[in-house]
This record gives sequence, C-alpha cells and structure tokens, in this order.
Amino acid sequence: MKIFSKIVMAVAGLTLLATPAFAEKVVKWNLAMTWSSTLTPLASPAPKLAKMVEAMSDGKFIIRVEGSEKHKAALGILDMVSGGQYEMGHSAAYYWKGKDVNSVFFTTLPFGMTAAEQYAWFYYDDGMDYMAQVFDKFGVLSFPGGNTGVQMGGWFRKEINSLDDLKGLKMRIPGLAGEVFSRLGVNVTNIPSGELYTSLDRGTIDALEWIGPGMDIKMGFHKIAPFYYTGWHEPASEMQFMINKRAYDKLPPAFQVMLQTAMRAVTADMYSENFADSVNAWAQMKSEYPNIQVKTFPTPVLKAMKQATDDVMAENAAKDPLFKEILASQQDFMAKARAWTIISEYNYVKTSMELGE
Amino acid sequence: MKIFSKIVMAVAGLTLLATPAFAEKVVKWNLAMTWSSTLTPLASPAPKLAKMVEAMSDGKFIIRVEGSEKHKAALGILDMVSGGQYEMGHSAAYYWKGKDVNSVFFTTLPFGMTAAEQYAWFYYDDGMDYMAQVFDKFGVLSFPGGNTGVQMGGWFRKEINSLDDLKGLKMRIPGLAGEVFSRLGVNVTNIPSGELYTSLDRGTIDALEWIGPGMDIKMGFHKIAPFYYTGWHEPASEMQFMINKRAYDKLPPAFQVMLQTAMRAVTADMYSENFADSVNAWAQMKSEYPNIQVKTFPTPVLKAMKQATDDVMAENAAKDPLFKEILASQQDFMAKARAWTIISEYNYVKTSMELGE
Repeated sequence: MKIFSKIVMAVAGLTLLATPAFAEKVVKWNLAMTWSSTLTPLASPAPKLAKMVEAMSDGKFIIRVEGSEKHKAALGILDMVSGGQYEMGHSAAYYWKGKDVNSVFFTTLPFGMTAAEQYAWFYYDDGMDYMAQVFDKFGVLSFPGGNTGVQMGGWFRKEINSLDDLKGLKMRIPGLAGEVFSRLGVNVTNIPSGELYTSLDRGTIDALEWIGPGMDIKMGFHKIAPFYYTGWHEPASEMQFMINKRAYDKLPPAFQVMLQTAMRAVTADMYSENFADSVNAWAQMKSEYPNIQVKTFPTPVLKAMKQATDDVMAENAAKDPLFKEILASQQDFMAKARAWTIISEYNYVKTSMELGE
Repeated sequence: MKIFSKIVMAVAGLTLLATPAFAEKVVKWNLAMTWSSTLTPLASPAPKLAKMVEAMSDGKFIIRVEGSEKHKAALGILDMVSGGQYEMGHSAAYYWKGKDVNSVFFTTLPFGMTAAEQYAWFYYDDGMDYMAQVFDKFGVLSFPGGNTGVQMGGWFRKEINSLDDLKGLKMRIPGLAGEVFSRLGVNVTNIPSGELYTSLDRGTIDALEWIGPGMDIKMGFHKIAPFYYTGWHEPASEMQFMINKRAYDKLPPAFQVMLQTAMRAVTADMYSENFADSVNAWAQMKSEYPNIQVKTFPTPVLKAMKQATDDVMAENAAKDPLFKEILASQQDFMAKARAWTIISEYNYVKTSMELGE
C-alpha cells in the first residue's frame, strides 16, 4: 500500500494530509500477555481487541497477540512495554507492586470495592487520573482490561472454625492476601500452577486460592477439597492494558480512538464472559460433587484479616504520600458507593432470597 | 472527498476495491433518541457512540444525534428506524410491548436478573439470539444500550405496612410494574414528567416511581416524600440501540465493526455513569435531607407482587409460544446465575456489612 499512498498524497495534496489515518502504511504492533493464549477468559480481551482494531481499520492496524507460552516472561510485561519491545501488554497492575507499590490500587484490594463500584471510581471519579500518574514514569499508558468479579476465598481440605485453625496451615495464596494470611500465622507458599492439584491432593498444602468456579473447574480442586470459601481478598480483580506511550503518540488519531473504544468494549466483555463461565461451572460442580460445602470464614477470622489488611495499608501510607492519597480517594468513594450498593443491588438480591427464589 | 476517491480508484484499481471502506464518500446517518438531549445518563450513550465512530472513521462516518425535543416522537423510535427515516435509534425495548410483547425480555422484568446476570444472558447465553429474532420482523437490528442497574421502588408520602395500605393508593408507575400494582388495588395513573413534582406535592398522587438517586435528585421528590422504597420491579433496566437493517447491510464492514465496538463501549459506560451519579446523589440527599427513610416493602406485599408478576407472565406465555420459550430461557439462566451471585458478590457485601463497613 505504500506506493498507492504516495500516489494518493500527490494527487490529493493538503486535503488528504488532513485525514492521513488510512492513507499511510499499515501499522503493525505486538502485544504480550501475562497469560498463556488458552487461559480464557483472562486471555480473551487482547485477541478480541486485535480483531476489532484490524476490522475497524480495514486491515491497516494489525496487532499480533503473543501469550506467555511464546515470550516466556509472564511477569516481564511492564518492562517489555516500557522498553518498547512490545507496543502493548495485557496483564494486571498489582504484579508491578515491586516497582511501585501504588500499582495495587488498580487491580483490587482485600475488603475493597466491587466491580461496579470500582468502575465508577475509575471512569467517573479519580481512578483513571491516579492510574495515569502511577504509570507515567514507565512511559506507559494504563487502562482497565477486564474484571473477574469477586474471587472465591479458596479450596480448603479442612474447615476453618477459628483463628487457631489458621496457625501453621500450609496455603498457596499470593500477593497482599498472602501477606495478610501470613500475619495470621498461615504458612504461605507459592507453587507453580501445574503442580497445585498434586500438592493439594498429597497434602503438601492444606489449602489454595485460585479464582472462581469458571477457572477453578478446569483445575479440578473441587474433587479433592470439599470446603469452598467465599471471597474477601479480591472482590473485583481488574486486568490491565498497557500501551507504550511513544508508540501511542505516533498513531493517527483514528487508531488511538479505535484502541480506546475497543479496550472499553473488551473490558466489559471479559466481565460477562467470566461471570457466565462461573455461573455454568458452579452449576456443574454442585451437580457432580454435591458434597462441596460453601463456607464463609467466621467473623473473628474475618475481623483479624481486616485488621491485618488495614495494618499493611497504613504501613504503606506512612511511607508513601501518594499511597496515602490514593487510599483516601478509594476509601472516600467506597464509603459512598457501598451505601448505594446496599440499598440497591444488595437489598434486591436479599429480597429475592427471602421470597425463596 | 468524492473526487479524490474516484482518482484513487482509478490509480489503485482492484487492490483498493478490496479495501473500500475509507475511499468512498462520507456516510451520514441520523439517530433518534427516546430521551431529550439533556437527560443524562440515558442521553449519554448515543452522542458518545457518534463521537467514537466519527473519530475512528477519520470523519467518514457521521452520526447526527437527535433528542426527543427535536423529533417529538419519544415512543416512535422503533417505527422511525424500521421505516428508515432514522438509521439508528436509542430507546428501551419494553416500550415496544404493544407491537410485540416479547420485547419486554430485553429491558428488565420484575424480580428478574441483575445487570451482571442479564449481560451474561445476553452475550454468553441465548439473549442476543432471542433479541435478534424478536426485532427481525421490524427490519431492525437490536443491541443493549446501557443499564440503570437496580431502580428504586419509588417515593411514597406514607409508609406501606400491609397490602391494605396499597388499596386505593394513587401512584404513577408505568409498564409491567403498574400492571402488578393495579392487580393489588393501587390506582395507577400516568402523569407527564413535568407535572410529577406538583402532583406529588399537592397530593394528586400519593406515590411515584422514577429511577434512582442519580436521576431522582433533579426531580426533587426527596424534598416532599420521605419514604424511599427499595427496588423490585426494574432490577437492571437495559437501554436499546436499534439499527435499520438495510442501512447496516450497506455499510462497509469496517463501519459495521465500529458500530458494534462503540455500542459495547458506551453500553458499559452508561452503567458506570449512572452508578456514579447515584452514589453521589444518594450521599447528597442523605446529607441534605437526613429524614429520608429507606424502606423495603413488607414480605406479604412483596409476595403478592411476585405472585401478580408470575400471573402476568403465565398469561402471556399461554398466548405466545415464543414468550414461553424466552421466559424459560431467562428463568433457567437466572436460577444458575443467582446461585453464583449469592455466593460471590452478595456474600461479599454481606460480610463487609457484618464487619461494620
């Protein structure tokens, strides 16, 4: 198309210069995902975005999507997008807390906002501004990239009746939740995903946290650990699109808007995909393994988890003024938002339950 | 651009014919909304979609958006899109129940699905297929167009303590919910929105249903009716984009994908906008009018509402096989979906409340 473009430019002159988006050469980008290409729904948004952008640009903006099975750097996505080896990435912001602890605010927090609350904070409160501020130093633009909704608290071989039952328990649970459990005396370990089933089956670990029914069912944990605990630690895990800022700035404006629009579309889509997966997987699990018991941690355990979470947050806030500021923004918004959630959707579901639905 | 296009075609020959989207003349469409242009967030999705499409097409696909203040046919949108006077519309499907009762399934139903459940049904179960089937006879493509979440049960001047309190009550509440209330002895009336405040203030009506805090606050009802009832009748009201099928089929594929992508983006966006509006409005209302009391209808009243709803649905199902089929699809999916909602987000919010958040 390069030759045609030159001819067009010569013929059309200044008029065509004003709308250069589709007269120039094909733009080819690479996008690296934290996930392997088959790990849907986490691996769904990026390929869908690529298809949308290619179709909308009439084949003039091509994004090649690469899963972790290819680039072998699941947790190197920020570096690779920042450095320009890949123009885009799809991951989750809390993986970068070693580089900047403030990145944790853009995924989810223990006892934090629900998906609806968090999206309102992102798009109609301060969320997007703070995210831009945190990722600017990496030369990276950051955007929401899909949400898992409430993640389950994990699969346990034994019931947890008290704080004592947590002491010495061997559990696979990463991130902030792992830190919280660790403070409560849990022996927190990390184990590669491929070894989790065997570790749980053989008793190398007593419990593990994964995601929710939709993704858990493929792992088979429900066959060997009868207690499925409800969630507290990742109420609305948001995935993340990253774009190298220099590459973005060079795009024709039309392509920039295509990216922005497609990111919003696939972000909403992943939430629905994961929700539907969990709906169907949970129905199947309950039917095939009727002995699965859904449990909620006892209130004293939850209170201790909450206290440990508050302690971790306060320690970080004392060290970092921006952390303190973003935490306050989230807490202020969440207080208002939860009041609305309670009288609207929470109350609605409660009413339906009382009517025996 | 027409002249340049012809020159380009002559020079580029067949190669350019393969990618005609941006070489042809500017496509100009008109979109009619049920709402006036200022009635955000209902009036937000269509203009945002138009901006996205114009930017993505580099100014080659222009959609002029018209509010009801201009076309004066708020409830004529389906006819106007079907007849081709407007290529697109933005409205809500349940307004067309007089033309086809099956349209009610694509907005919301009393005691029906939440927004997350309903989107999963639309996009990852049978929803989109059934919607296409229902609107096909009008020559119209139909898509989700934004969601209000749970709508509140309305503003009441007196508390409702029993079914007897509903007898003879004068209330403005349209649609299926009005039919349900009517069966419970409520004197259901319809009053133009501009006269609602005065009617409620003067006692011409005792109660009214509007939307939720975000839109209600502008109407001022909280100043004159102290009881704000929680929702049961519109748990997830979905707006609707309509496209004239002949017009859509004539679009270059790139423009079709732009529309599809932008509709998904603005649909998700309206849900967040309305959620944020309600969060902020509810905080403001409670602060300025601390005497507002949030009430839930007593269980016997809710049971009677549920029974009346089930009766209405059964009567329609007996008359129309497709109604019966779509109802079964929604009920089957909702049963599974609600089980997941309860152990995930419902339980999470409940836990947070018990911890005193």
